[in-house]
Amino acid sequence: MTELAANSTIGILGGGQLGRMLAVAASRLGLHVHVFDPAPDGPAAEVAREATCAPWEDEAALEAFARAVDVVTYEFENIPAEALEVIARHAPIRPNRRALSVSQDRLTEKQFLTELGLKVAPYAPVEDAESLASALEEIGAPAILKTRRLGYDGKGQARISGPEDIEAALEAIGHAPAILEGLVEFEREVSVIGARGTSGPVACFDPGENRHEGGILRRTTVPAAISEGQAADAVLIAGRILSALDYVGVLGVELFVTPEGLLVNEIAPRVHNSGHWTQNGCTIDQFEQHIRAVAGWPLGDGTRHSDVVMENLIGDDVAELEGIAASGAALHLYGKAEARPGRKMGHVNRVTGPA
Amino acid sequence: MTELAANSTIGILGGGQLGRMLAVAASRLGLHVHVFDPAPDGPAAEVAREATCAPWEDEAALEAFARAVDVVTYEFENIPAEALEVIARHAPIRPNRRALSVSQDRLTEKQFLTELGLKVAPYAPVEDAESLASALEEIGAPAILKTRRLGYDGKGQARISGPEDIEAALEAIGHAPAILEGLVEFEREVSVIGARGTSGPVACFDPGENRHEGGILRRTTVPAAISEGQAADAVLIAGRILSALDYVGVLGVELFVTPEGLLVNEIAPRVHNSGHWTQNGCTIDQFEQHIRAVAGWPLGDGTRHSDVVMENLIGDDVAELEGIAASGAALHLYGKAEARPGRKMGHVNRVTGPA
Repeated sequence: MTELAANSTIGILGGGQLGRMLAVAASRLGLHVHVFDPAPDGPAAEVAREATCAPWEDEAALEAFARAVDVVTYEFENIPAEALEVIARHAPIRPNRRALSVSQDRLTEKQFLTELGLKVAPYAPVEDAESLASALEEIGAPAILKTRRLGYDGKGQARISGPEDIEAALEAIGHAPAILEGLVEFEREVSVIGARGTSGPVACFDPGENRHEGGILRRTTVPAAISEGQAADAVLIAGRILSALDYVGVLGVELFVTPEGLLVNEIAPRVHNSGHWTQNGCTIDQFEQHIRAVAGWPLGDGTRHSDVVMENLIGDDVAELEGIAASGAALHLYGKAEARPGRKMGHVNRVTGPA
Repeated sequence: MTELAANSTIGILGGGQLGRMLAVAASRLGLHVHVFDPAPDGPAAEVAREATCAPWEDEAALEAFARAVDVVTYEFENIPAEALEVIARHAPIRPNRRALSVSQDRLTEKQFLTELGLKVAPYAPVEDAESLASALEEIGAPAILKTRRLGYDGKGQARISGPEDIEAALEAIGHAPAILEGLVEFEREVSVIGARGTSGPVACFDPGENRHEGGILRRTTVPAAISEGQAADAVLIAGRILSALDYVGVLGVELFVTPEGLLVNEIAPRVHNSGHWTQNGCTIDQFEQHIRAVAGWPLGDGTRHSDVVMENLIGDDVAELEGIAASGAALHLYGKAEARPGRKMGHVNRVTGPA
C-alpha cells in the first residue's frame, strides 16, 4: 500500500493538541480518524470519528485499533516499542519505527546526526557518577545532563556548573541513562519543519526563529532573522535527515545558529509546536502536510504567503482570551478544561504582513 | 447571555458539510460542538463531540439537545418552525428566528428586501393557474416559477416561456405556493458574506463572483470583476440587511450586477458555499466568523490576503482527486461515502496570487 483511497481512516497514537490538529487536517481531506490515547478526554478525541482509550500495554486494544485503520501515525515520540510491534503486525506505521527509535534516545539521535556529517553540541554518554565526572572533564562546565529517553519541554534535565553538582544532577534525573551536553554559544535558535512523501519528494516550510522560556517554547517568528544562505543550509539539513531515515511525514528539526554554522539541537519525528505558524502563513499547513504524506498523497503547497509570529498560550495566559480574540490575531485553543501552570492551552498566530 | 465562556458548547442544527466546517472552526476556538441531524452519518457528526440523530418532530430529543448546549445555530434554513419553538424555550438561537422565517419564504424575503429599499427582480405571488396567468401578464415571459419554501440548488423551480407552460410549471412544483420571478438581464452574479456580532459590529468579506451550472454553484472568483463603487455598494447592502434583522452570525447575500445597479437575488441566513474561498484567502474564514459571532465573541480579521478561485467538486468530479491534490491547490473534502450526481463532495480553493 502506498496511497490511501478517499474515505480511508488514519490512526493517530496520542490524543493531545497535536493529534487534535492532525485530526482536523484529516477531516479537511475527507479522511476519517481513529485516535488511540491512554488518557481519557484528551483534546483530539472530540474531533475524531473514533477514539480508543486504553493503556499502551493493552495488546488486544492495540490490535483492534490497528485493524480498524489504514495507516498509523503518532503525535509524540515516546510510544513504547512493544506497542509499536503489535501495531506493525496489522498496519503500516508512518513515520517508520527507525525514525522513532532514533529520536526516542538522545544518544542514538546524536550518533545518527554525527554519522550523517551534521554538527551537534559536544556530548558524552553518562551511566553513573564516574562516567559523568569524566564526561564533565571532557566537555567542560557549564553543561546539561539530559536523560536519554522521555525528555520533553525541559523535563529530565539538570544543569551542571562544576563537579560539585554531580550527585544532585544524577538525583534530579533519577539516575536514568543520560548524556552530558555542552552548552553551545548560539546567536539564535531556528527550526525547520520538513515533510517527505512516500515516493521521496521533500518539501520544507520556511525556517522559524524560536524563543524558549523555562524550557518551553514561547514564541516562533517567521521569517527567522538569518541570511538566505543560512536558511538554505537549514532546509538542506532537514532534507538530509528526512532522506537518511527514509522518512514519511512531517519532521521538526531544531537548529542552533552559531558563528561556526548550524548545529542540530534535536529532531522530533512529528508535527512540531514551532510549525504552528503554518496554519496562518501557508495554504497547506504542517498538519495537512503530515496527513498527506502518511496517506501517500501528494504533498501540498507550503509556500509562505504571510509573515507570522506564533505565541504559545501557557497556563494562565488564557485568562487574556477576550483581548486576544479582539486583537485581529488568529486564536487556536485546544479545549482543555483546566489551565495548569506550564500547560499548553492554545496558541496565537499574529499575521504581521505579506511574505 | 451575550458571551460564551471558553469550553462552552455550540449546538448545530443540520449535519452536512457546512455543519462540518462550522464544527472544525469551533474546535479551533476550543469550543465544543453538539450536532442535531435527522440523517445518520452526515459529514458533521464525526468532528463533533456529540451528535443527536433524531427527526425534527422528536420534541424530547430537541429539548435534551437544547439543554445540553449554550447556544444553537444552524447550517441550513429549512428547519421546521415547531422544532425551533421547542429549542427556543431552552437555548438562544442565533441567527434569530426572524432571519430564518424571512429567508424561508421567497415571498416574505422579497417583501422584506423591498421594504428596506433594496432592488429585487420583479415578482408576484402565485397560488394557482389564475394568479399565475395574471402574474405572467404583469411580469412578462420568460420568467421562473419558484416555490415559496424549501427551494435549494435549483430544486422547486420551473421556467415559463409563455401562457402555454402554466399547467406544466404548476405541476412541476407540485402546485405549492409560489412566486413568479422575472428574468433579470445581469452582467454577473456576485455575493457578499457578511457577519454581525452580538453587540452590533458588522464585518464583510470581499465580494466574490459566482458562476452557476445547472442551478448549482460551480465557481466563485475573488476578487469579483466589479468596480470599487459596486463592491462598496454590495457590502453596504449586506450591512443594511444584517442590521435590519438584528442579525447575529454570518449571512450570504447573492446579488445581480445590472446596468441599473445591484439587485438582491436572495439571502441565506448561514455560512454560504460562495464563502468557502475565505478558508484560503483570509486569516479568519466565514466558519470561524460565524462561530465567533454566535458565541458572542469579537469578530475576527476577515481581510483578504490572497486572491482565490473556489471550485465545487460535484458528483464524479472527485474521481480527479489525485490530480487536484498534486496541483498545489487546497483541497477540501466532506468525507461523503457516495458520489451521487449533483452531490457536493468537496471544493478546491486555488490561490491565484497575493491580494
